Amino acid sequence: MYRTHNCGELRMSHEGETVTLAGWVQISRGFGGLTFVDLRDRYGITQLVFNMDEDAELCQRALKLGREFVIQAEGVVRERSNKNANRPTGDIEIDVKTLTILNGSKTPPFTIEENTDGGDELRMKYRYLDLRRKSLQEKIIFRSELAIESRKYLAEKGFLEIETPYLIKSTPEGARDFVVPSRMNPGQFYALPQSPQTFKQILMVAGMDKYFQIVRCFRDEDLRSDRQPEFTQIDCEMAFVHQEDILNTFEGLTKYLFKTTKDIELGDFPRMTYDDALRLYGSDKPDLRFDMQFKELNDLAKGHGFSVFDDAELIVGICLKGKADDMSNKTFKQLTEWLKRPQIGAKGLVHVKFQGDGSIKSSVGKFYTAEQLQSWGSYFGAKAGDVLFILSGEAEKTRTQLSALRLELAAKYDLIQPGVFKPLWVIDFPLLEWDEDSERYHAMHHPFTSPKKEDIVKMESSDRKVLADIRADAYDLVLNGSEIGGGSIRIHDRALQERNFKLLGFSEEEAEAQFGFLMGAFEYGAPPHGGIAFGFDRLAAVMNGSASIRDYIAFPKNNQGRDMMIDAPAGISREQLDELYLDTKNPNLSAET
Amino acid sequence: MYRTHNCGELRMSHEGETVTLAGWVQISRGFGGLTFVDLRDRYGITQLVFNMDEDAELCQRALKLGREFVIQAEGVVRERSNKNANRPTGDIEIDVKTLTILNGSKTPPFTIEENTDGGDELRMKYRYLDLRRKSLQEKIIFRSELAIESRKYLAEKGFLEIETPYLIKSTPEGARDFVVPSRMNPGQFYALPQSPQTFKQILMVAGMDKYFQIVRCFRDEDLRSDRQPEFTQIDCEMAFVHQEDILNTFEGLTKYLFKTTKDIELGDFPRMTYDDALRLYGSDKPDLRFDMQFKELNDLAKGHGFSVFDDAELIVGICLKGKADDMSNKTFKQLTEWLKRPQIGAKGLVHVKFQGDGSIKSSVGKFYTAEQLQSWGSYFGAKAGDVLFILSGEAEKTRTQLSALRLELAAKYDLIQPGVFKPLWVIDFPLLEWDEDSERYHAMHHPFTSPKKEDIVKMESSDRKVLADIRADAYDLVLNGSEIGGGSIRIHDRALQERNFKLLGFSEEEAEAQFGFLMGAFEYGAPPHGGIAFGFDRLAAVMNGSASIRDYIAFPKNNQGRDMMIDAPAGISREQLDELYLDTKNPNLSAET
Repeated sequence: MYRTHNCGELRMSHEGETVTLAGWVQISRGFGGLTFVDLRDRYGITQLVFNMDEDAELCQRALKLGREFVIQAEGVVRERSNKNANRPTGDIEIDVKTLTILNGSKTPPFTIEENTDGGDELRMKYRYLDLRRKSLQEKIIFRSELAIESRKYLAEKGFLEIETPYLIKSTPEGARDFVVPSRMNPGQFYALPQSPQTFKQILMVAGMDKYFQIVRCFRDEDLRSDRQPEFTQIDCEMAFVHQEDILNTFEGLTKYLFKTTKDIELGDFPRMTYDDALRLYGSDKPDLRFDMQFKELNDLAKGHGFSVFDDAELIVGICLKGKADDMSNKTFKQLTEWLKRPQIGAKGLVHVKFQGDGSIKSSVGKFYTAEQLQSWGSYFGAKAGDVLFILSGEAEKTRTQLSALRLELAAKYDLIQPGVFKPLWVIDFPLLEWDEDSERYHAMHHPFTSPKKEDIVKMESSDRKVLADIRADAYDLVLNGSEIGGGSIRIHDRALQERNFKLLGFSEEEAEAQFGFLMGAFEYGAPPHGGIAFGFDRLAAVMNGSASIRDYIAFPKNNQGRDMMIDAPAGISREQLDELYLDTKNPNLSAET
Repeated sequence: MYRTHNCGELRMSHEGETVTLAGWVQISRGFGGLTFVDLRDRYGITQLVFNMDEDAELCQRALKLGREFVIQAEGVVRERSNKNANRPTGDIEIDVKTLTILNGSKTPPFTIEENTDGGDELRMKYRYLDLRRKSLQEKIIFRSELAIESRKYLAEKGFLEIETPYLIKSTPEGARDFVVPSRMNPGQFYALPQSPQTFKQILMVAGMDKYFQIVRCFRDEDLRSDRQPEFTQIDCEMAFVHQEDILNTFEGLTKYLFKTTKDIELGDFPRMTYDDALRLYGSDKPDLRFDMQFKELNDLAKGHGFSVFDDAELIVGICLKGKADDMSNKTFKQLTEWLKRPQIGAKGLVHVKFQGDGSIKSSVGKFYTAEQLQSWGSYFGAKAGDVLFILSGEAEKTRTQLSALRLELAAKYDLIQPGVFKPLWVIDFPLLEWDEDSERYHAMHHPFTSPKKEDIVKMESSDRKVLADIRADAYDLVLNGSEIGGGSIRIHDRALQERNFKLLGFSEEEAEAQFGFLMGAFEYGAPPHGGIAFGFDRLAAVMNGSASIRDYIAFPKNNQGRDMMIDAPAGISREQLDELYLDTKNPNLSAET
């Protein structure tokens, strides 16, 4: 080793010991006849001291050390006269006798400090420098710990970690696949898995009983800031279980992870049906860190001559507590504009302001009497100082719009206490989802999800309302308004699986070509089974109150799916294309030679 | 849960308890007025009993249960009159009161027993049934344990598990890449990593200090029976270390894995230079489970008129102990034929047989006196009953041929005791390897490997002999004649890395285009670093005395790179090809629509 200790471990108990440290120069500065160097590594920072009186040449060399130089220093641990209580090593310093420069460094393109001056692009390109910043390093270390603890919990519960293949078969269902041309099978392609779904079910048929894997998954989607083309899942499956068993096991995992990595005790997780989540929060992943449940006003607000409400399928509102006097007409106008943007698409916003002096102000004051507006207030439990926000229109869209407004108000008025974690199981998802574009049903979760036993009969109906009513044994784990996990009990019966494929518009031939192996497996003693997958990147981010997963991935890609550091993807050689029997059709780009 | 206990846990201490089990019917048989069902799951087998006198209908239903039916049975634990000492649950049985068939099963295409009648192809196709066989299931469970213990050891040593990307950039160096067309960047491709080599080095530059990952790697090579297009590595890298530190850390890992998963204590691992390994065993991965070191006979055997020896660069032999009287002329003839096959390519085989009666018989008896042959025997320490096998010719080839013969004799004469493990560090590998075909140097390990400090000056030579002499800080871990790990100290200096690329025939532009990001990183304070990677599939196999890795992979591919179960690779749709700006040129195969 180039060192006897790391830069975070020396204490007063080491006083008098001769030690060797190695690391990066955070800063070097002269002061009187002394040179001080802060030496940094993953574990901490230790102060090195060079004394002009003792060794002038050494002291001069130390003064010339640039930022990020890699050095090795031998010296004696001694007590600092000027202690630094903010640093675990702050009681000591090293009186250096020997200095070796292991590698120099050019001046970094941005400062490697907590508050860096580097822009996003620059920091992505020099990711290895960005990763030296303490906050980013801590996130990567947190992720490593989270993986270790996840595995510890699951292994102790009898789960086997079993690796499933990355080179599998493309299936048109779901998101777009990344494909991999096969040289040995010309004209044929592998696909990278969007999840190991069918393989983990096969493992249950194989009798593995409890499976998990922390596994990379791939989706070729147009990227948003919080999506990555490759992402990581904690993927699990269990045999001989009901939904209740899975919920208990993974509620246990989540509590365990919070306890071991953040020392936070989470209470038992509440549960809410999908229908209730939409009705009360307009979202299947409600953020419960603040209140503002939806209340429906159809009975109270219809039939008073306000045609917008009278014609609406749904009138629904939320109550913001105590902000009436902070809200001017300008505020309401801004919120209305915000709601009218195409991303949200609301037609307008109705507000009712219960002012501090007891008076009521409302944008629909001319249609409703003060008494009527007061009755709305009572319905919401509103007091002086509170404001009602009311939207109306087609039920589903209106709920979605109000959900966006609810989150916006929470952000605007700081309703979310930092460090608070509110988990929620959303259960009883519908089996099917009607897709207007393709005019057919999609699987809400995926095509292997089991309908609830009592709803199986409904699968024979041709009434769209009956079909929409089929509930599945499917569940999501929501944390602070983010979906961090989702799963279901699976179908384990060939006939039921065939029935489901048919509902989803698969021909018999398509179903057989794509999932014949799975349906075949169901004929040889498939046990009842179910599972769940946690988005690992997102879990790490949400557990630290972060909205973006990118900082929790060592080498993320940008929104064009590009790795800025290695500059991938890139052209490949003509020879490689020929070996794969491929030609690229892009007229503007030909493969490099 | 569908069960209160699994099929492996009930004992006499549970006597009298009402329990529910679920699992697969191993066999159902009637005997007198009773039906016995062996119920199986991952954890074991428990005997269920149905009594005709108690419930005739139930007993009849049990008798009709087919093999591999999935059932649930409730009943009372009771002592068996006829105990089965071979089964952990053999003291008890379940007196069944309720039976539920959870799923039926067609008759499996092969028997799910230890000795199955299913051929390779059939068992690959129905992998989910093959995986139900105890021996295969144990291998997958062993692998899971091996991963858990590997992570435990490395995490305790301060290693961080950091995930590196799977969608990276293709580099022509090394084996052939699998590539992934990018839809968002038309005409460009990602590549799947052959190893996370450059990323783990970047992590060292980023200050992560100790990295590991159990990670999938991909190589598009023509497959042999023990190769897979995707395979798993325990991949590691450490900063501020010398070769000695890495050897100690991973010798520790190997000992720990043997101790925890197999309860075997390995002593300290011997070390051998690459040169010695070739000189003494003709191989850089010698199997030390048996003796038979090479001895060179040039001094003793040349100049006696046997032109084959006189003209040879090298005469080298091995001594087989105590088998002289088992070996007829026919045996020698067969071995000679075996050596002459094109795979080995030897010209002939010389033997000297020291017979039990003290006489000597040799295929070169007419060129050498008995005294001369006796002196060879003394040189080898041969006694009556021993046989010398001698090959001659060009040095390198002859050593390789004799190495093959050494392994063949060990197999033929059962020289390898089962359950014996002989690890060995092979060190001081050459930096470069001359490739006759391309008439240029290849990196023996990889282009990032550091030459030994004292050999760096030799890199400036143009003398091929001097260049061949450059040793690297590169090492392999060999176990029972299999390479299970290999690594090196890396170059961390831009100028030295450039020099190495130049030796390997890279132009400056090629080096910059492919590895510019790494050389750039070396300019910003790269610490000295090095690492190692273990072949995880092979480690699992070799630790269990198995030659093939396939049984240790849940879903392996066949020699055509095909997943027989899901039938991948396969055609993709015209639409998918269009989105990727691709065309397939294979005239016989067009993409499916």
